[in-house]
Amino acid sequence: MPTPERRTRLTPEERRRQLIAIGVNALATQPLEAITIEYLAAQAGVSRGLVFYYFNSKTGLHHEIVRTARDSLMHATEPRPELAPADRLHDTLDRFVTFARDHRLTFFSLVRGAASGDETVREIVDQVRSAQAERLTTMFSELGVEPSPRVHVALRSWVALAEQALVDGAVNAELEPGELVDYLERSARAVVELASTPR
Amino acid sequence: MPTPERRTRLTPEERRRQLIAIGVNALATQPLEAITIEYLAAQAGVSRGLVFYYFNSKTGLHHEIVRTARDSLMHATEPRPELAPADRLHDTLDRFVTFARDHRLTFFSLVRGAASGDETVREIVDQVRSAQAERLTTMFSELGVEPSPRVHVALRSWVALAEQALVDGAVNAELEPGELVDYLERSARAVVELASTPR
Repeated sequence: MPTPERRTRLTPEERRRQLIAIGVNALATQPLEAITIEYLAAQAGVSRGLVFYYFNSKTGLHHEIVRTARDSLMHATEPRPELAPADRLHDTLDRFVTFARDHRLTFFSLVRGAASGDETVREIVDQVRSAQAERLTTMFSELGVEPSPRVHVALRSWVALAEQALVDGAVNAELEPGELVDYLERSARAVVELASTPR
Repeated sequence: MPTPERRTRLTPEERRRQLIAIGVNALATQPLEAITIEYLAAQAGVSRGLVFYYFNSKTGLHHEIVRTARDSLMHATEPRPELAPADRLHDTLDRFVTFARDHRLTFFSLVRGAASGDETVREIVDQVRSAQAERLTTMFSELGVEPSPRVHVALRSWVALAEQALVDGAVNAELEPGELVDYLERSARAVVELASTPR
């Protein structure tokens, strides 16, 4: 019969995922900088050496945590192809607001991941912005909006608007979720509209 | 007669300002993190010890550089009270675009100052956003817009939109200055309009 210790032994991949998950969850209560090798080892009940073995450094650990947070945001806000283009925007924004409310600090650290002195973290966060802007470009082109430099600048800048509105409106809870979704949807339509019409 | 060395001797306050100015100008070619005590000492032709004497640490130096960059942005984009409210918005945005174009990397590092792991730098950058949102609130209230939580979220999020649009449109030069000013003005009016009208 296996001893209790044997039964809880994880495969290397499982252990790796478990450590990253603990790190992502820790973002709920503290900034990325506070999530050290030591902290993670203590939380997971493993040695510092084991955490080092998986991530090489605190920086390596942070990259994995931020990548995982990015992936869960991108997955949670993936547009649903089965919906009509007009409904798809609303549905995506609705799930964006839900994610920001349910994962306040994960979302906050992704937005403020810009807030890392670390170039790789900034790049990962930038990928979220670019990917969201691309998704929007696709959704709006299905609604008949021609891509142009103005529309490109408008959609990228709208993603920044959305992040700040989500931080103030959802994380800091200044608005009701429905009001916030409404603001996001109408502002996205408004900036695209004015970017596609000449002065 | 004074020797040449004596003639270039600065008062402590002049020296301090000179060192900060060198630091702010250095933002034109490199990120804040690269501006070290050693770099500044070499650029100013003074000893490391003297730079330490004024700023205590690299962090102290960075705080002064970012505060000075913040002050010059806030000064350059100060609304002109002598203009009518409707013209004042356009004029302010016009100067905002000019500042971002003329001081590309200073502006970029202020926007990405969020991009410092340093809490104080983030606070200084956050002050810019809050101050810009307040200026806008004042300008729009003079145009008859009632303050509300929706308008508050809209104006703060519009400042984030403006920063991203300025990075893409002015720093990366994706749009003509006139087009960018037009986009900023119309998007500010649009988000305020939709935040002040019920669904």
